[in-house]
Amino acid sequence: MTVAYQGEPGAFSEEAARLLFGRAVRPAPLERFKDVFQFAAKHRSSYGIVPIENSVSGSIHQNTDLLLRHKLHIIGEVKLCVQLHLMALPGVSLKNIRSVYSHAQVLGQCEDFLRSRWRVNVVAYYDTAGAAKMIRERNRRNSADIESARAASAYGLKILRRNVESNHHNYTRFIALSGRRADPRVGKKTSLVFAARNVPGALCKALAVFALREINMLKIESRTLIGKPWEYLFDVDVEGLTADRRMQQALGHLDELTTFLRVLGSYLFGKTIKD
Amino acid sequence: MTVAYQGEPGAFSEEAARLLFGRAVRPAPLERFKDVFQFAAKHRSSYGIVPIENSVSGSIHQNTDLLLRHKLHIIGEVKLCVQLHLMALPGVSLKNIRSVYSHAQVLGQCEDFLRSRWRVNVVAYYDTAGAAKMIRERNRRNSADIESARAASAYGLKILRRNVESNHHNYTRFIALSGRRADPRVGKKTSLVFAARNVPGALCKALAVFALREINMLKIESRTLIGKPWEYLFDVDVEGLTADRRMQQALGHLDELTTFLRVLGSYLFGKTIKD
Repeated sequence: MTVAYQGEPGAFSEEAARLLFGRAVRPAPLERFKDVFQFAAKHRSSYGIVPIENSVSGSIHQNTDLLLRHKLHIIGEVKLCVQLHLMALPGVSLKNIRSVYSHAQVLGQCEDFLRSRWRVNVVAYYDTAGAAKMIRERNRRNSADIESARAASAYGLKILRRNVESNHHNYTRFIALSGRRADPRVGKKTSLVFAARNVPGALCKALAVFALREINMLKIESRTLIGKPWEYLFDVDVEGLTADRRMQQALGHLDELTTFLRVLGSYLFGKTIKD
Repeated sequence: MTVAYQGEPGAFSEEAARLLFGRAVRPAPLERFKDVFQFAAKHRSSYGIVPIENSVSGSIHQNTDLLLRHKLHIIGEVKLCVQLHLMALPGVSLKNIRSVYSHAQVLGQCEDFLRSRWRVNVVAYYDTAGAAKMIRERNRRNSADIESARAASAYGLKILRRNVESNHHNYTRFIALSGRRADPRVGKKTSLVFAARNVPGALCKALAVFALREINMLKIESRTLIGKPWEYLFDVDVEGLTADRRMQQALGHLDELTTFLRVLGSYLFGKTIKD
């Protein structure tokens, strides 16, 4: 089973793929998120995995927009608690470090640590695991990398300082994508996107299709489309499976009340896992 | 009139402050967002300005959470179209550049350009304008910076490549904060936060307080509290002013139906401005 993800071996998305699909998974690292969506759309027996939401930095709109541009289904999710550590080659100590490498987003998540501690160059690298690989391959004894403990062991680095993330309750939610729908009888959670008419009460009416049928809402977010700033769509997660008659009726009713509706998938609730 | 913001002179927030408060503003650059909130809370005749939402990367939850932790009112907003340019000292050409500096978030927004063009070190700097200052002060002829055109002129840099941002429809919404409420008779938009009971229909009922009174919704987002991942609050913007009787009744009604409610402010719609 091949699962495409963005990044280098050892990236958080690869770990998420293993947690969701098991150790037998064949990971396919790709350069951009766009590539992951294209891969999953093209290879119908394969999957893609992408981060979609972070408890600190919010929804990853780049990927919610890519979801709308591809005919893919969400077939599963997993929430990964991100713990970030400062690591370097064995034998290197904190005082040897002149440069710290990591992904720009990871560097942002460790801003308090990086600003307060000591004077180093902070260098953005396009993959956290890519930085570890570079330090190992070029034997950089004056450089450190910030990433997950798992990636450290993958490249033989030693942890110099644990949990350098500014917020210790930092979770990322990953979703698994496939060209084929998941079995509609096993899902417990349904994700959808709709556009409501821009008149008072339109959103309230749209949500009433769930409220009137006692279907619980799990998430709602109005958002702008990339390229159309401040034009709003609604991302909604509700509890229940699409095979359920009540849910089918709610979705039919929602279709009457909205100008656009797409069901992104029905899938099992993801576990929250400490990396 | 003093307006505190996060960053160095020439930062986007400073430009937003000038657009909102006029050229006579006295800008007070501070190191962290937290400092901006504290400054505005302490100096009642001064203001703070922070980015709260970006059309590409989504809501800035760090600042929405800081809003809840301080007794401040939103008194205005402005939307700034972010255009990013690669710039260096006069006389320097693209082929001389070995390092590109900018804020980690800005580097992320220019990822396509930085990955595709040529081999350079990409260095995260904690302020876009801080990188321009450093290049000027240290006369770095092999370095470039990515930032707004306005910051380039502030530090005497020349633009080497225009619009290197990956998405050319990149807007940031800034809000102005004060310890004093804005005149409740002039606002056209009201921002609030509430927590609804976690039962089916609770959100629908909460939104009905606006729908039943023909009050238009402008934004809704369920979100996790930092430190309490996956526990949801709702951020809502509605059309109308708090001095309006209908709005007061809606807010009173909402208070009956929610476990927590805070009105963040009533203010005029912000203009969208190309930097």
